[in-house]
Amino acid sequence: MDSKQFREAAISSIDDIVKYYDNIEDHKVVSSVEPGYLRKLLPDHAPEDGEAWAEIQNDVQSKIVPGLTHWQSPNFLAWFPSSSSYPAMLGEMYSTAFTGAAFNWICSPAVTELETIVLDWLAKAFALPECYLSTGSTHGGGVIHGTASEAIATVMVAARDKYLREATAHLSGEEQEDAIALKRSKLVALGSAATHSATKKAAMITGVRFRAVPVHAKDEYKMTGEGLRTMIEELRAKGLEPFYVTTTLGTTDTCSTDDFDSIAAVLEELAPPGKGEIWVHVDAAYAGVALICLEYQHLAAQFHRFHSFNTNMHKWMLTNFDCSVLFVRQRSWLVEALSVTLAILRNDYTDSGLVTDYRDWQIPFGRRFRSLKVWFVIRSYGIKGLQAHIRKHVGLGETFAELVKSRSDLFEIVSGPRFALTVIKLKTKGAAATLEEQNALTQKMHEAVNAGGKIFLSSTVVGGIFAIRHCPATPFVEEQHVRKHFEVLVEAAEKTTA
Amino acid sequence: MDSKQFREAAISSIDDIVKYYDNIEDHKVVSSVEPGYLRKLLPDHAPEDGEAWAEIQNDVQSKIVPGLTHWQSPNFLAWFPSSSSYPAMLGEMYSTAFTGAAFNWICSPAVTELETIVLDWLAKAFALPECYLSTGSTHGGGVIHGTASEAIATVMVAARDKYLREATAHLSGEEQEDAIALKRSKLVALGSAATHSATKKAAMITGVRFRAVPVHAKDEYKMTGEGLRTMIEELRAKGLEPFYVTTTLGTTDTCSTDDFDSIAAVLEELAPPGKGEIWVHVDAAYAGVALICLEYQHLAAQFHRFHSFNTNMHKWMLTNFDCSVLFVRQRSWLVEALSVTLAILRNDYTDSGLVTDYRDWQIPFGRRFRSLKVWFVIRSYGIKGLQAHIRKHVGLGETFAELVKSRSDLFEIVSGPRFALTVIKLKTKGAAATLEEQNALTQKMHEAVNAGGKIFLSSTVVGGIFAIRHCPATPFVEEQHVRKHFEVLVEAAEKTTA
Repeated sequence: MDSKQFREAAISSIDDIVKYYDNIEDHKVVSSVEPGYLRKLLPDHAPEDGEAWAEIQNDVQSKIVPGLTHWQSPNFLAWFPSSSSYPAMLGEMYSTAFTGAAFNWICSPAVTELETIVLDWLAKAFALPECYLSTGSTHGGGVIHGTASEAIATVMVAARDKYLREATAHLSGEEQEDAIALKRSKLVALGSAATHSATKKAAMITGVRFRAVPVHAKDEYKMTGEGLRTMIEELRAKGLEPFYVTTTLGTTDTCSTDDFDSIAAVLEELAPPGKGEIWVHVDAAYAGVALICLEYQHLAAQFHRFHSFNTNMHKWMLTNFDCSVLFVRQRSWLVEALSVTLAILRNDYTDSGLVTDYRDWQIPFGRRFRSLKVWFVIRSYGIKGLQAHIRKHVGLGETFAELVKSRSDLFEIVSGPRFALTVIKLKTKGAAATLEEQNALTQKMHEAVNAGGKIFLSSTVVGGIFAIRHCPATPFVEEQHVRKHFEVLVEAAEKTTA
Repeated sequence: MDSKQFREAAISSIDDIVKYYDNIEDHKVVSSVEPGYLRKLLPDHAPEDGEAWAEIQNDVQSKIVPGLTHWQSPNFLAWFPSSSSYPAMLGEMYSTAFTGAAFNWICSPAVTELETIVLDWLAKAFALPECYLSTGSTHGGGVIHGTASEAIATVMVAARDKYLREATAHLSGEEQEDAIALKRSKLVALGSAATHSATKKAAMITGVRFRAVPVHAKDEYKMTGEGLRTMIEELRAKGLEPFYVTTTLGTTDTCSTDDFDSIAAVLEELAPPGKGEIWVHVDAAYAGVALICLEYQHLAAQFHRFHSFNTNMHKWMLTNFDCSVLFVRQRSWLVEALSVTLAILRNDYTDSGLVTDYRDWQIPFGRRFRSLKVWFVIRSYGIKGLQAHIRKHVGLGETFAELVKSRSDLFEIVSGPRFALTVIKLKTKGAAATLEEQNALTQKMHEAVNAGGKIFLSSTVVGGIFAIRHCPATPFVEEQHVRKHFEVLVEAAEKTTA
């Protein structure tokens, strides 16, 4: 394919993409293919000879599109959104064209420098304390990871090594290595029972234990300082050493936010700096971008007492997957845990210490030019446009909750609306039904709705209650859609309870 | 930006990209900006109001392009290539448009299914043993990771947990957890002294020790079975437990390949299955794609005796960054080490066990639709086209080595040509110079060449020798370029030794 052929193919692909977006509602939101559908349609072996672009492009429409679930559909209400925007797509186009492994500054200075700049922009826009700025007094800063799970695994490595380093600082060489290895066997990472599985998985990856701090309906499923205190004291009594905790701003099930004030106070008492300090990470994968709105910025007021924070631009901030921004209060914590140097990587700029080599802030060695799409999104929408985007969805969540309340004969709100998410259950006629029977009915209704193909929602279980999550935060969703979603739910509820 | 505006902006961006590629040689291959250049050009804060696309696009040309190092330039000879192709760019365009987090099958069945199919295509094209096929007898298969470093960290987690599980299989519950934590403190991951730093970093991430098996010039810097035996016996004598080794096909410094036969034999003797088996991973990040050529396929003949294999499509196989393909002999090893389940992720397809949820084969939770670009590349070029691509570069490496030999008054070949890479040093006039003096001269020449801006090469140190690597494996490089590279080197050598 030469550049002329590419130009034609690319324009034709752009036309496909525009058509796809303009008609996104024509697609059944969830793919209805059966497992193994594609193997039946494709050859067993790679072709020996090259094929024409037209054949490949046709196959995208005829074989791939039917196997897609349409995350940009206004009827996609499952999990959290993975939002898309045209400026971000343009960012990806340039980023792909300027491709390189970009593991250090000289690999393409613009890749590193733009990342530092747009992350400082974001830190300011989110009203994070100044310690998270690259120019801040604690030498912190931000980095773009692919996903929140990578960000959490990365800070857990840094937290583990910081803790072990501080605890064995009086030793050196193999003696220190042995002491570290032994102490590592006692380490425990914590998160609330409502935190995302990414924290448990990070503990599995980093080779430490994981314990979940219980949460309760009476606290709106928040982790509290007292809950954390009880867990820390229990573990220490057993000779184990908690070294890290994930707190959450916007949990996966219900979008609740941990009680940062009491958590900070308990940790300052039980684990002060220099005496077994416990690293606190704030996972705000979905809801963190709401900090761009003044009305949410009080949530970041305590973050200077914590160690790191991440939120996903790719969930609710119009930046195509993947793009999770991670901020740390002191960047040397990452570099000390993750830096290795090869002779082949030697260069004057790295040696000078004047530049950032982001490979030491993450698990992968190479990196993509992800800041370009973030830059395009921020500049295209402006802060005001991004605030309007968040507020629109928060408003739609409130509209949905009002609709639910208007049919309190059919539904009950389990939690929310919070950050556009409302969690509901079916109300069973006659209060005599057991929780188990209620759950079975809600599950039956949920399955019927998804099978209907008009809308797609995910379920969860909170406090033993099987519940349905409605999260209208995709780019094209409007009030008319939310009203239709509700009609579909009402119809299914009436059928289920009939 | 509406879809009409996007179409215009996208076509204009495509025009920029075509122009960039058509004129890639006009750019100085390495950016010559100074650290901090971009901060001086951009505002301190994100804009309050949205900006027009034309302003953003202009800034790409005026502020970003000067800060790029041009990895697709035929004068880019550093590290390993990070290659680009038009079909892969089209793949990225569709992948970005169909964006979603794709952490399980129902998130978009096509994402999972196409990945399994193209990885089976590749396993066959690379002549990997059938145990690496998804349909093979050992229930293995392939998965696309971002980078080789992620692939290595992932298999190290699986290897560690497999080893610990087997060693504590007689225990359960907290007793097993305690025994695992204690045993973990004794674990050692191995790699040769010439293996990429990714293995050491993976050991840091997974919380195990790392030891490098020495390599020697007499063995062409290969790890041998005997070298590995010595290391294992030494570690075991100290009470430590080697559980994992990275072997390399195409090392970073010299593209040497470990002695797979003797390594397999020694491990079958010292660490047979069921008795402290040691996981063997083959890191073929750069050179592995050469297995598409029949003349290299003998290198894969022993892989059924190993556990996993990865190669980067984004280095030498025309697939824009990032795309590292990882194959394992038994996929349950990954899933057992990495699977966690949340209530919110429940769905009938996952419950049925008929589908693959690739999130359990990797560190991140969400995933991009990377198989699309691989599919486009394989179909556009065909196996024959990809073979021709590899053979062209291998031939250019040979041409360069012949040129070097023709000026044995100026240069000496330290290693190669292997997989297009030739490693050279300056020959000092008069044999009396010490190694240190020789190294200083080669380094001086290397710095002068890179500062000249005509070509860009990386240096390394092998067996104490400071050397320059020449790796002509970018898509547009031709014989005429290689002859020019050599002229630049001759001129610099003559100046340096004058």
